[in-house]
Amino acid sequence: MNIEEKDGSTVLRRTTDYQPPRTWRTWLIGRPLSTADAPHQAIGKLIGLAVFSSDALSSVAYGPQEMLIILAAAGAGAFYLSIPLAIAICVLLIILTLSYEQTIHAYPGGGGAYIVARDNMGDFPALVAAAALLTDYILTVAVSISSGVAQIVSAYPFLYRYRVEIAVGLVLMVMLINLRGVKESGKAFAIPTYFFLIMMGVTILFGLFRLFFGTLNPVVNPPNDLMELHSILQPVSIFLILKAFSSGTTALTGVEAISNGITAFKEPRSRNAGITLFWMSAILGSFLLGISVLANHVGALPSEEETIISQLVRTVFDSRGVLYLAAIAATTVILVMAANTAFADFPRLSALVGGDGFLPRQLAYRGSRLVYSRGIGALAVIASGLIIFFQASVTRLIPLYAIGVFLSFSLSQTGMARRWWKSGKLAGNAEVQERGSKLVHDPHWQSKMVVNSLGAFSTAVVMLVFATTKFIDGAWIIVFLIPSLVFSFWTIHVHYRKLAAGLSLEHFTEQPRIARHRVIMPIGGVHRGTLAALRYAKTLSDDISAVYVAMDDEETKKLKEKWEIWGDGNRLVILESPYRLFVEPLLEYINEIDVHRQANEIITIVVPEFVPRHWWANALHTQTAVILRLALIFRKNIVITSVPYQVD
Amino acid sequence: MNIEEKDGSTVLRRTTDYQPPRTWRTWLIGRPLSTADAPHQAIGKLIGLAVFSSDALSSVAYGPQEMLIILAAAGAGAFYLSIPLAIAICVLLIILTLSYEQTIHAYPGGGGAYIVARDNMGDFPALVAAAALLTDYILTVAVSISSGVAQIVSAYPFLYRYRVEIAVGLVLMVMLINLRGVKESGKAFAIPTYFFLIMMGVTILFGLFRLFFGTLNPVVNPPNDLMELHSILQPVSIFLILKAFSSGTTALTGVEAISNGITAFKEPRSRNAGITLFWMSAILGSFLLGISVLANHVGALPSEEETIISQLVRTVFDSRGVLYLAAIAATTVILVMAANTAFADFPRLSALVGGDGFLPRQLAYRGSRLVYSRGIGALAVIASGLIIFFQASVTRLIPLYAIGVFLSFSLSQTGMARRWWKSGKLAGNAEVQERGSKLVHDPHWQSKMVVNSLGAFSTAVVMLVFATTKFIDGAWIIVFLIPSLVFSFWTIHVHYRKLAAGLSLEHFTEQPRIARHRVIMPIGGVHRGTLAALRYAKTLSDDISAVYVAMDDEETKKLKEKWEIWGDGNRLVILESPYRLFVEPLLEYINEIDVHRQANEIITIVVPEFVPRHWWANALHTQTAVILRLALIFRKNIVITSVPYQVD
Repeated sequence: MNIEEKDGSTVLRRTTDYQPPRTWRTWLIGRPLSTADAPHQAIGKLIGLAVFSSDALSSVAYGPQEMLIILAAAGAGAFYLSIPLAIAICVLLIILTLSYEQTIHAYPGGGGAYIVARDNMGDFPALVAAAALLTDYILTVAVSISSGVAQIVSAYPFLYRYRVEIAVGLVLMVMLINLRGVKESGKAFAIPTYFFLIMMGVTILFGLFRLFFGTLNPVVNPPNDLMELHSILQPVSIFLILKAFSSGTTALTGVEAISNGITAFKEPRSRNAGITLFWMSAILGSFLLGISVLANHVGALPSEEETIISQLVRTVFDSRGVLYLAAIAATTVILVMAANTAFADFPRLSALVGGDGFLPRQLAYRGSRLVYSRGIGALAVIASGLIIFFQASVTRLIPLYAIGVFLSFSLSQTGMARRWWKSGKLAGNAEVQERGSKLVHDPHWQSKMVVNSLGAFSTAVVMLVFATTKFIDGAWIIVFLIPSLVFSFWTIHVHYRKLAAGLSLEHFTEQPRIARHRVIMPIGGVHRGTLAALRYAKTLSDDISAVYVAMDDEETKKLKEKWEIWGDGNRLVILESPYRLFVEPLLEYINEIDVHRQANEIITIVVPEFVPRHWWANALHTQTAVILRLALIFRKNIVITSVPYQVD
Repeated sequence: MNIEEKDGSTVLRRTTDYQPPRTWRTWLIGRPLSTADAPHQAIGKLIGLAVFSSDALSSVAYGPQEMLIILAAAGAGAFYLSIPLAIAICVLLIILTLSYEQTIHAYPGGGGAYIVARDNMGDFPALVAAAALLTDYILTVAVSISSGVAQIVSAYPFLYRYRVEIAVGLVLMVMLINLRGVKESGKAFAIPTYFFLIMMGVTILFGLFRLFFGTLNPVVNPPNDLMELHSILQPVSIFLILKAFSSGTTALTGVEAISNGITAFKEPRSRNAGITLFWMSAILGSFLLGISVLANHVGALPSEEETIISQLVRTVFDSRGVLYLAAIAATTVILVMAANTAFADFPRLSALVGGDGFLPRQLAYRGSRLVYSRGIGALAVIASGLIIFFQASVTRLIPLYAIGVFLSFSLSQTGMARRWWKSGKLAGNAEVQERGSKLVHDPHWQSKMVVNSLGAFSTAVVMLVFATTKFIDGAWIIVFLIPSLVFSFWTIHVHYRKLAAGLSLEHFTEQPRIARHRVIMPIGGVHRGTLAALRYAKTLSDDISAVYVAMDDEETKKLKEKWEIWGDGNRLVILESPYRLFVEPLLEYINEIDVHRQANEIITIVVPEFVPRHWWANALHTQTAVILRLALIFRKNIVITSVPYQVD
């Protein structure tokens, strides 16, 4: 122990020896970690690619497929359109990559959409970005896990009826892993990511090789459930093409991940992160094109029962053998890891927003394993709810997805464009410290502003196309949800601000010293518990009123007699209660006393509180003390004291 | 207000002017009634018959039918057995009537099985009787309502699929009526009961008339669902006959009702009640025999889809016309009223048992309408649960029913026999005041003892037959439930007894006056709320320790500085919490202080408790005060004081 005496105040400082005990939680998520244990590690480009690209790369498992599902409405003859659409998506990918590369260099401390929007455009756009991102992370979990389960079901069709249970089970598994707070996440991530890269790369290259030599055959027994659904075909319309394009853009979700996590990279951070981003985009783009071309050639049909990936792989390898199972396993694992990314991002963002006072502040407290446990739990619950509601169907979830992603892309790019504008206006050697970064003059600010503006514009267009074409399919939910979230953030913020003002000690003058103390002691009988409370009350004041709410004349008479013996001369107030109410007459009496209270006077309600030894015994007693506290807690200048009394 | 000064204690006595406000509850169950409003009315024999006989008379709606359902296993050829069985049941009814007539005269204050068993055999048999009766009342509600719904469904078969919803709706309706506490229940009951008596009487008489003149035809289109079920017929065995007899005895449930409610009759109470009992039994017996004979003659088939009553009535009147509908309506209404009787008895008995300390005492408190609202609510919830579980099927509920009834019959009659024995041993003019009645010498004690012994014996035999033949059909539930209920009663009683001993002021010596007061004040920051709590703490003691659980060095430093300005020289204890735990380090610190506590010393924990203006804002704050109270409430000699602080 360490004692400091200063200015008359004694300060004792001590570290507790308290060691958290081993409980079932220890078994589930590991022993609690001390704050000093917080991990600090830096990763290189190879590991960085593994850690940050699972979200983006895994989206090739559902992006091309969802595009085909829309085109299916116009019949298999419209599937060829998926190739030009895939090229368009790749162009968008290039724009995004260039834009984000600039963000990475401008925000070496991490440049998520929330921070970029907050620094460059103010609170309101930042909150919109936060709302968009939070919904987006939830949907990442729901979509990735559902798609992962769809891969499993493709390989083992008898599991189809258990898909919801499997999906929720996977969400809970990922939740547990994150509650544990895996320190060595880097290396653990590298193996499955590179396994997926290799398996998908081999499949695509071998497929293209067979295509070139003309030995690639059509899919054997393609599933036909969706094609049968569309017995009456729609014509190929602009609307349909734009809708298919929207579905395809879901393949770009996750591109922003590296720009959020720059601090994890080794120095020179921004350079390493930037190079990793280019690699990732190149791989994503080639996978996207490769899968589209091959799926078209083999005539894969989109289906709820077997994924495009599954059809493609078994056609390329001509069997459902070891290579097929390995590729499906790799795809499933990378999809689960994409969900894992959201489990890292959602709690971090909600802690950031909570720390700024727009969400409950508890979200910013670290749990026993140094992770934001509350955010992790909330994400798991909401995502599981979505999976159950949409029965783990990727196609039904997709219309909700990607609006949030592209809204946050657009806000982030707009913020960056605004930043270059400010940078251009800055004198040559001036530096401005903003909340999330340092702003300096950049000689190339004009060209950089053009790049980010192009990014902002194109992602905004995609978002609008998405919201329009998918509105009735479910996008309306997000269109209404994001403003309501922003409204909630604002309400919470107003609450915290008012509270801070109300608690502030600025302009605070001390209240007069309490000179008079009135004690009101509600009693239900005269027994040892009552006398213990009375003994305590005597230390507070000489002005004690025991109050008894009388419902039965016989009992009241007995009580009066007992009080005359044991009440030590203190006042007993008997309130007749003709309606057999307990709390209301008492409150009325307290009110009356309160009206005549003076400024230097305080009223204390001393409540004898009986505490049974067994919890179930609580059901055998009217919880007067609890009810009274709830009724009185909203009153000013009334203090409630519980004098517990246990019987052994 | 009325002030008495006596022995140095001032006693203030006052009646509150508080008028309960009008709320949605007022609309639902009526305005609260003052204790002085308790009704006192006495009823004559005609009204008495109406009030107390609905339970007994309504059982003819299911008793004969359930008998036929059992016999159906041996084919329609075995149905003729229902007539001798009905005669046997009538013999049992005569024994019961004579027995209960004696109870009525011995217990003019009301002689339910619980009271009779308690007075004459002690607590344990009384508790068995209480357990039996309480289960029985619950089943009366479930069976009567289900049978009522079966009548409705017979008349309107399309309602079959909504039978569970209708049944639960009726239970809730009866619950509401009872929560209202209908004062003028007597007259309101007379109309439907006599309506039923007339309709059933007319049906039976007209049916016998047509039978006599040979114009009574067989049922047109009898339902055949149960007969088809028994495609392989059993032989007629003793077991089957006893089982059918057991089912039939359910028609006797409710015979005891008058003996419970003697106080409601006009003087001479016992005589009036006794005569009413004879009338009721006579009507019940003739209905039972009449229905059995007629149902046999017309060849009515037991069914889940149409009741025997419905088949009988439409055959006697040759149509589904007005008379048919009136008879079905009357049967439905009397069945619902039988449930209503249980809603009067269950709360009254549970209040009695609760008042004796074998059930939560709250059951003995009257609600706003002067009825035992908690008992009424509990009954509605449990009975609805049973109806939902057994899908409102009378046949599935019947095996649970009647064991409890006959167990309580038997205990009550055994108690009475014991009472006559005691009465015989008494001197000619001696009087013994027992808890529920006055015991005097009876010159005819021997013959009366024989009557009650016969009643006790025959009902015990019926109970054993019932439990044996229906064991696997569901009676086992009751066989296990009643002992567990008795065990719970006993556990509750032990709790109350221990508590009373622990609270008793006998052998109590006053504790030394509290001479030293230590205040511990957990704080989360230094703000107006903290200072309000500090201001209060200063009135308690000079020995104040503000305790801060430190998780972040920066914040701790700020807090220390603030405390040096505002802490008024009081001690500040900083507890470093490396695992970011809040409550545990605090408890450890309090423990340490507590260990050195002296007998005349008390520790008060002063907790600044922030109270938001909107309830939802609670989600935005860690509920430290609540958690702390829960953690400390089990400790002795530690008082918890909440100093509420509201921000406006």
